[in-house]
Amino acid sequence: MRTGVWLVGARGSVATTSIVGALALRSGLTGPTGCVTELPDLRGPALPAFGDLVLGGHDVVTTPLAKRAEALAAAGVVPARLVDALGAELAAVEGELRPAPTGGTQAERAAATVADLTAFRQRHDLARVVVVNVSATEPTAVPYPAHADPAALRAALTGADEVLPTSSLYAYAAIEAGCPYVDFTPSTGLRLPALAALADERGLPYAGHDGKTGETLVKSVLAPMFAMRHLAVRSWSGTNLLGGGDGATLADPAANAAKVASKQRVLAEILGYLPQGGTRIDYVEELGDFKTAWDLITFAGFLGTGMRLEFTWHGCDSALAAPLVLDLARLTAAAHAAGHRGPLEELAFFFKDPLGETTHSLGDQWHRLCAYTRGLHEGIPGADPR
Amino acid sequence: MRTGVWLVGARGSVATTSIVGALALRSGLTGPTGCVTELPDLRGPALPAFGDLVLGGHDVVTTPLAKRAEALAAAGVVPARLVDALGAELAAVEGELRPAPTGGTQAERAAATVADLTAFRQRHDLARVVVVNVSATEPTAVPYPAHADPAALRAALTGADEVLPTSSLYAYAAIEAGCPYVDFTPSTGLRLPALAALADERGLPYAGHDGKTGETLVKSVLAPMFAMRHLAVRSWSGTNLLGGGDGATLADPAANAAKVASKQRVLAEILGYLPQGGTRIDYVEELGDFKTAWDLITFAGFLGTGMRLEFTWHGCDSALAAPLVLDLARLTAAAHAAGHRGPLEELAFFFKDPLGETTHSLGDQWHRLCAYTRGLHEGIPGADPR
Amino acid sequence: MRTGVWLVGARGSVATTSIVGALALRSGLTGPTGCVTELPDLRGPALPAFGDLVLGGHDVVTTPLAKRAEALAAAGVVPARLVDALGAELAAVEGELRPAPTGGTQAERAAATVADLTAFRQRHDLARVVVVNVSATEPTAVPYPAHADPAALRAALTGADEVLPTSSLYAYAAIEAGCPYVDFTPSTGLRLPALAALADERGLPYAGHDGKTGETLVKSVLAPMFAMRHLAVRSWSGTNLLGGGDGATLADPAANAAKVASKQRVLAEILGYLPQGGTRIDYVEELGDFKTAWDLITFAGFLGTGMRLEFTWHGCDSALAAPLVLDLARLTAAAHAAGHRGPLEELAFFFKDPLGETTHSLGDQWHRLCAYTRGLHEGIPGADPR
Amino acid sequence: MRTGVWLVGARGSVATTSIVGALALRSGLTGPTGCVTELPDLRGPALPAFGDLVLGGHDVVTTPLAKRAEALAAAGVVPARLVDALGAELAAVEGELRPAPTGGTQAERAAATVADLTAFRQRHDLARVVVVNVSATEPTAVPYPAHADPAALRAALTGADEVLPTSSLYAYAAIEAGCPYVDFTPSTGLRLPALAALADERGLPYAGHDGKTGETLVKSVLAPMFAMRHLAVRSWSGTNLLGGGDGATLADPAANAAKVASKQRVLAEILGYLPQGGTRIDYVEELGDFKTAWDLITFAGFLGTGMRLEFTWHGCDSALAAPLVLDLARLTAAAHAAGHRGPLEELAFFFKDPLGETTHSLGDQWHRLCAYTRGLHEGIPGADPR
Repeated sequence: MRTGVWLVGARGSVATTSIVGALALRSGLTGPTGCVTELPDLRGPALPAFGDLVLGGHDVVTTPLAKRAEALAAAGVVPARLVDALGAELAAVEGELRPAPTGGTQAERAAATVADLTAFRQRHDLARVVVVNVSATEPTAVPYPAHADPAALRAALTGADEVLPTSSLYAYAAIEAGCPYVDFTPSTGLRLPALAALADERGLPYAGHDGKTGETLVKSVLAPMFAMRHLAVRSWSGTNLLGGGDGATLADPAANAAKVASKQRVLAEILGYLPQGGTRIDYVEELGDFKTAWDLITFAGFLGTGMRLEFTWHGCDSALAAPLVLDLARLTAAAHAAGHRGPLEELAFFFKDPLGETTHSLGDQWHRLCAYTRGLHEGIPGADPR
Repeated sequence: MRTGVWLVGARGSVATTSIVGALALRSGLTGPTGCVTELPDLRGPALPAFGDLVLGGHDVVTTPLAKRAEALAAAGVVPARLVDALGAELAAVEGELRPAPTGGTQAERAAATVADLTAFRQRHDLARVVVVNVSATEPTAVPYPAHADPAALRAALTGADEVLPTSSLYAYAAIEAGCPYVDFTPSTGLRLPALAALADERGLPYAGHDGKTGETLVKSVLAPMFAMRHLAVRSWSGTNLLGGGDGATLADPAANAAKVASKQRVLAEILGYLPQGGTRIDYVEELGDFKTAWDLITFAGFLGTGMRLEFTWHGCDSALAAPLVLDLARLTAAAHAAGHRGPLEELAFFFKDPLGETTHSLGDQWHRLCAYTRGLHEGIPGADPR
Repeated sequence: MRTGVWLVGARGSVATTSIVGALALRSGLTGPTGCVTELPDLRGPALPAFGDLVLGGHDVVTTPLAKRAEALAAAGVVPARLVDALGAELAAVEGELRPAPTGGTQAERAAATVADLTAFRQRHDLARVVVVNVSATEPTAVPYPAHADPAALRAALTGADEVLPTSSLYAYAAIEAGCPYVDFTPSTGLRLPALAALADERGLPYAGHDGKTGETLVKSVLAPMFAMRHLAVRSWSGTNLLGGGDGATLADPAANAAKVASKQRVLAEILGYLPQGGTRIDYVEELGDFKTAWDLITFAGFLGTGMRLEFTWHGCDSALAAPLVLDLARLTAAAHAAGHRGPLEELAFFFKDPLGETTHSLGDQWHRLCAYTRGLHEGIPGADPR
Repeated sequence: MRTGVWLVGARGSVATTSIVGALALRSGLTGPTGCVTELPDLRGPALPAFGDLVLGGHDVVTTPLAKRAEALAAAGVVPARLVDALGAELAAVEGELRPAPTGGTQAERAAATVADLTAFRQRHDLARVVVVNVSATEPTAVPYPAHADPAALRAALTGADEVLPTSSLYAYAAIEAGCPYVDFTPSTGLRLPALAALADERGLPYAGHDGKTGETLVKSVLAPMFAMRHLAVRSWSGTNLLGGGDGATLADPAANAAKVASKQRVLAEILGYLPQGGTRIDYVEELGDFKTAWDLITFAGFLGTGMRLEFTWHGCDSALAAPLVLDLARLTAAAHAAGHRGPLEELAFFFKDPLGETTHSLGDQWHRLCAYTRGLHEGIPGADPR
């Protein structure tokens, strides 16, 4: 069951790391560390094998994939030995990358994207293609009346206006091409009523938003700890220092605001109240693809005694995100194969700002993910799940 | 349903904080922050109310409780206003404290303890008395053949040897007096086959070991995070700096070893492998009742990329332990009332080194605790649980 | 040689702590921890004794000093026992506090201030009065042509405009009253050409700006360490979380900007280049008078190898500032007694943003301070310095 | 003026990094970051140029230098591009490395070492050879009566006993060969009365002990900060986690004790009292050549208010040590050329445990080093120092 993975932002750090990793896994050159779907609780027959994944994608930049991979090796994100060993495989993926459509109306660009997706599916005889958005974070989108209604949207796209933000135009094209869609960024993507309605019409599942790879991941286990122990969190202040492409994007205050808001939501939801303090994102170019987050949590215990917890997270965002991109592609493909449609709330485990009304506690998200995945495996005829 | 709580080590920091807190809660002078059994998921009719708890205990030292409370107020562990306001109530508890029996054979000391417990129960017309060990950590106990068999043990206790460590002699006396027993320390306590058999014979429930109040609490949520994300923990090194009574005790290498071993077990159980690194406990008198723990975790993500997490925990052990002591007394009393016997594995949530074969993931322990407590509440006739 | 210390912002946290401390030192209730002028290298006959300091001041608020002291005791900034023991002495200082002049032209308000200062000096038969600004940080001042020239300034002050920021109006009044002036804040104060010229005319010494009490203090020893070892600092990012009065003021972006700029100047001056990264100040009310600063420094060593240093400073700004206020009052009084005039660049040790072209290395500032103070002591007839 | 640098432990991480660095500097492939003697305050005509240094050394292991350099490149200690570019130069140094003499009496081994040193000097027509000990830390040495007297020592060395620890035997041989000697480790080296007397007789300068590269470096600027501010350090606790060769050696408690003692001495000397707390060294293999040190300092300010400073140092010991090895070789060579003899106390800046009665404040050590070096430059005929 060959499955396509189409990466929007295919030459970015996350996508390049995902591609190198998928090729290395397929070639047996690396192990599945970081791949959640390879844990005993999750693996099974419903998920396409790494060897069955075929990679392609769009990007606005044209730097060769091999150059990007070398840059990541120099920065310590991926091992140089893998980049050296995978030259031919990377060249093959290079042949599947397409320039992001430009010019014309949004409808014309969407049509070009649909054509690329359809040709990719046919060229490789794929059972399905999962579109995953890993492009740079957009500023908060401008609202448009046409966002509310499929018909109005279709009409508006043929006009001169940029009705949809880019992430949403890709989501629209994915739906039109019959592709499940995953949004790994905090951008708007499929989060517009018109697009949700269209996905539903087409019977497509989708997942998002904003991969949970660093500070928020830690928050999603520490905040439940305070809640379960009935400790009163008085303040929770976070500072995120990051270089790399995403850092530069987030230096833009509008994009920053979107990401910060999704980070604080986690606390309010888990604790039942919003403690004092906020989250900062600062761009420090020299930190490159590695990110340092520092959080200070002050809390009160029995009789009001004041205490503190501090943590420093020093992680490589691309290395943390890439295996989750593969996990999400596999799970969303399996959901599609099982005939599921609409928002995949069961995949909240992967996201800072998950779709639907769902818990933000990582442990609870994990249990939900396990149950869902078990169901997928049990639906495979003749399968002996675990 | 008045319930006795008998504290072994009743003049120590944890016990004194528990007593001040219980009295303050009963008087409405403080809220239940830190009390797990007051969370919506756990509270209910099976648990004795704070107003129904009657406090007493043994100690080898004789410092008046009021003096100990004042010292804790000066150290910032309990608010001075509470100690001032609770003078009469503290004096009443002072009247229920007894000197730890000394002299004679261990059988004679056990009998004196049983007499104290029985008199306490009768004097206050208590439904039951829960014995909670919060005394200083003992060195690892010397093995004895009589530890294996109730009859042999009874015989040996009448001899001149110190067959049982003190914590176990209290456990023995508790059983003989028909009292459920909780061990909040890493000492041996009830963890001897002969004592477990006796508790079973007498139909008594018991819980332990070693209250989870600081670094290990954080470990029990962070380690599952790494496991759920399939990240490979390469090293986990911890340093605990603590002053106060417990710190001085743990400066003794033998006691230290016991505590350190229970701290590392958590990692091996959750991760499925033991990372490099160890845990240190160092006594720094000036830190007083506050403890600082620093942990460095190095881990590998996708393709082996190295990353790090550091945390510093600055907590007040007594303030963290005291509400759990009250929680455990309430839950163990309810278990006894429900006719449960043997090790209460469902209370693993509270312990560094829980009884039985059980998970060390805090989230999983929490779900088990909730289910168990719900069962207790549902067993109360006419109760409308939550 | 009785010496007046007139505090602008006399009911604030820094001033109140300074007052409680000065009274406690005078009464022998505390030791001189934190007082630099009591170190063996600095103490001597030129400095007025603590017992010779007479305290007074202005404030716009009217909360009784005793109430402010109690609040600081409750917050753990000063010991409650001192506040209890110093009731009479605090009441005496209360009698020396005056409301900040309001209404009328700035010339009229300056005249009222001069009258208060003169009356204070005469009432207590003081050799001199040192005015110290410890009021809240102002936003960056609006430039005015009259700032450049004494005569133009005098004329402008009689008009309706607020020509001078408040801190500068106090500096002006201090000069007019013949008082040496110290600016412990980053506000404009005496830093206007017209005011410097006036101080010079009157033969007055002055010192400033912005007491160095936390993160910048640590920077002023760590940055020289990197410089002396020829290590290349690539980024230096700081986050300051603070509650309390100063925190609320600094939440105002304009005031924040002033403080942040003076913090970064230290690095550029010491290192000879400005590393990447910036400094943040965030208000977190719950932290109260305690401030937490976290800094991440990334640096390159031999052959470009990347390394990191992180520090967390958890300090009480008022407790750090108060003894320096007393030090500065003593040193400035001694400078005035010695006939020195103009900017006291030798006191750079105390300031984030010192007057004049001076080093920012704490060690070098220390040696300059020692040499200067030794000179003051040697100028005292019959003195045997150290 | 060609100068030899003879490294004892020439295939270790520090030595290999020193060699790669010296070759890279000579070839213009890298800049002098980390080299103190290239700072404007220190550089000048008295110091041999990097191009004039000729490298050689002894080691007990035989791993080829190129292999060691590749391993360090893989571990991120030195850039792979340098190792690739310097193949021929590394091979040339390989030809100058000699196996550590074994077998026979200590006198015979010393004679073999002297022969190696003399041949090296003659082969390259060197003005002098500086011997630098960078071999693994030894356990504390066993005292011997012969350590006190040159004649007794010479006699004892001809016997069967291992009278001198290895580091001291090298020091002895260096002296016999007329070579200045630097001890970069905490081992005994030249610190025996008999050896000091011999060095004096031969008119040789020497420097040591124990290069200051990490936690102690930070201590040597932070401790003076507390002292200059009259803040009372209550506790200072340090944890050092290190892998690599030195880590394994220090896992040996005897070696650990030597290093820990020299680390604590710094505090007592600077502060004038020894705070509570201690320093730990733990071996964590996975950390490799990078070391993480965490220190917690608690201190009291004005009126006893308690505060805290924490720092985490994440440094590469070899990259920090290597440029200092070159600095010390250059400075000691210049001292020898200037006819200086005996302990070079002016080089205390470089050491954890400097020779002689000297300050431990890095700033003060720096000023002394600058003054000394200026004197060396001024002694060069026709030189225009700086």
